[in-house]
Amino acid sequence: MRVIEWREGSLRFLDQTRLPLEEIFVTTDDEYVVADAIKRLAIRGAPLIGIGAAYGFVLALNKVTDASKVPAAIERASILLSSTRPTAVNLFRALERMKAEAAAFMSAPLLEFKLHLLEEALAIHREDEAMCRAIGEHGAALLPNAAVVVTHCNTGRLATGGEGTALAVIAKAWELRTLKHVYMDETRPLMQGARLTAWELKQLGIPSTLMTDSTAAFLMQRGLVNAVVVGADRITLNGDVANKVGTYGLAVLAKHHGIPMIVAAPTSTLDFTLVNGSEIPIEQRNGKEVTHIGETRIAPEGVEVYSPAFDITPGELISAIVTEQGVMQYPFRDPIKRLRPGRSRAL
Amino acid sequence: MRVIEWREGSLRFLDQTRLPLEEIFVTTDDEYVVADAIKRLAIRGAPLIGIGAAYGFVLALNKVTDASKVPAAIERASILLSSTRPTAVNLFRALERMKAEAAAFMSAPLLEFKLHLLEEALAIHREDEAMCRAIGEHGAALLPNAAVVVTHCNTGRLATGGEGTALAVIAKAWELRTLKHVYMDETRPLMQGARLTAWELKQLGIPSTLMTDSTAAFLMQRGLVNAVVVGADRITLNGDVANKVGTYGLAVLAKHHGIPMIVAAPTSTLDFTLVNGSEIPIEQRNGKEVTHIGETRIAPEGVEVYSPAFDITPGELISAIVTEQGVMQYPFRDPIKRLRPGRSRAL
Repeated sequence: MRVIEWREGSLRFLDQTRLPLEEIFVTTDDEYVVADAIKRLAIRGAPLIGIGAAYGFVLALNKVTDASKVPAAIERASILLSSTRPTAVNLFRALERMKAEAAAFMSAPLLEFKLHLLEEALAIHREDEAMCRAIGEHGAALLPNAAVVVTHCNTGRLATGGEGTALAVIAKAWELRTLKHVYMDETRPLMQGARLTAWELKQLGIPSTLMTDSTAAFLMQRGLVNAVVVGADRITLNGDVANKVGTYGLAVLAKHHGIPMIVAAPTSTLDFTLVNGSEIPIEQRNGKEVTHIGETRIAPEGVEVYSPAFDITPGELISAIVTEQGVMQYPFRDPIKRLRPGRSRAL
Repeated sequence: MRVIEWREGSLRFLDQTRLPLEEIFVTTDDEYVVADAIKRLAIRGAPLIGIGAAYGFVLALNKVTDASKVPAAIERASILLSSTRPTAVNLFRALERMKAEAAAFMSAPLLEFKLHLLEEALAIHREDEAMCRAIGEHGAALLPNAAVVVTHCNTGRLATGGEGTALAVIAKAWELRTLKHVYMDETRPLMQGARLTAWELKQLGIPSTLMTDSTAAFLMQRGLVNAVVVGADRITLNGDVANKVGTYGLAVLAKHHGIPMIVAAPTSTLDFTLVNGSEIPIEQRNGKEVTHIGETRIAPEGVEVYSPAFDITPGELISAIVTEQGVMQYPFRDPIKRLRPGRSRAL
């Protein structure tokens, strides 16, 4: 099953807001439907948002029948799609690429112009798929035989154009028959593990077990786990990793139990402007995500909540960082410097 | 506010099923109302169940107006109250005490007989209060000045006849002005932290903050916490502690960050038949507690769940075990042996 796909002039995508209870696909040739899908999280995950926006741009320009109206259509599509999720950097990168492609072929015949835009959107998608595949291959080679892996949050096909990052590692190891089982944290407060990762692993037929976030420690103590694999939101020059809150605790526990802690992320996650993790600002989530489940209050009125969206894992607690370019081992400063910014076109 | 209280021939108790949204008290002179309250968790927490059952026994015998009917009433009350929560050891201990008291004064005039039963129930309640007070005093002395404490699950007045165990330590430190702030884990899956501890700390006016279970690690890393205080379900001869799942992870994190890990529990929690924690059976909870919130499914159909009710923290990760008899430091084997079983009458 493909989460997003170009099919004969239309875009077909999975409505993630209905997961895991229903698998509803939407097929549309209307960029407004795509923009709305991004806004309401039907299409989510930074790389997937970029891919969706690129296809949305194609749909918008496909409607144009008069070459003189192309510039206005570009302007309209850019405003529409860029206003959906203002903080997703991949969205803006994808739209920049689409606009550059449009500018380059502005004087071509209209049909050729449209084909170039589609080719660019397909390239953005394909590059993301290739990035996922490379991460999966590099990462799977790191796992022990009969690997029993703990993972956190959602890092798979629902967030990227391919197999994902940490979940690509897991899926590749399953294909190579070196993976035995996956334990996934439910990932409070937003339950991405319970809702999305559980669904993805079931789709892939990978034996997996759901648990509360505080159960992982006990699994490790009992010797039931031999690797932790997670994604990353941002990685600094010294290899400090910002990722979904709970990652740092897993890293300390992995260290205590002598279990490898593996981070899988594209090189686009590397922030070459930051020396270490203390420079990463910590986004605070709305307390209601903790005090309420849906609209039902579970904690008393007026309780104060501390809910950082992510935490910082220092590089020295990480065994390996896997990107599409290969595997880096601690200490990370030199291998990260050698990656050179901008070498990858991945979103 | 008292969670359970004898008032002029009646029992008054807080209906905990309505917390934290409503504070509803029930006043009754009917033992069937008490038995039902225990069964539906309106009265919960092992020591509190014992106290509730003792008062229920008094109410049942108070109805008797003919001395010849006392033996049958004792039999009926015992069966009614002991069938409410079959695994709560405190319930059976309390009923044994009430029956022994009844047997001792069976030949006394009916009014005197009833007074002796009431005195015994009040004694059970008072002893539990004294136990909590002593734990609070011993434990508060261990906390650093301007203590910022992480706690887990619910260990307070809602579970005992007094101020609780870990929460008694926290309440006493607040009274002594050595406590600055409490961070409480929400405690998945049943949310005792979010629902009950948050409510109790608000009642006590203690500054407190709610967080997801996986946020504690990040707090420790940032140096925002200087002690962890938790309760215990069972303690073995070498000081291994079974407590709500998540406790072991907190202990590893506390060790990693050089923060004291304090366990507060009555001596009745000590199991003198078990040499170490590996002998404690691990109760598995129903997976629905993880896959559903209330009746709403959040994880996909058919997902496998691993949900141990508690975990085992080895004694070497615990800085101190506080009981009503005082403070024990690691290694615990000798001080625990010196406690001698049965010395305390606490439930």
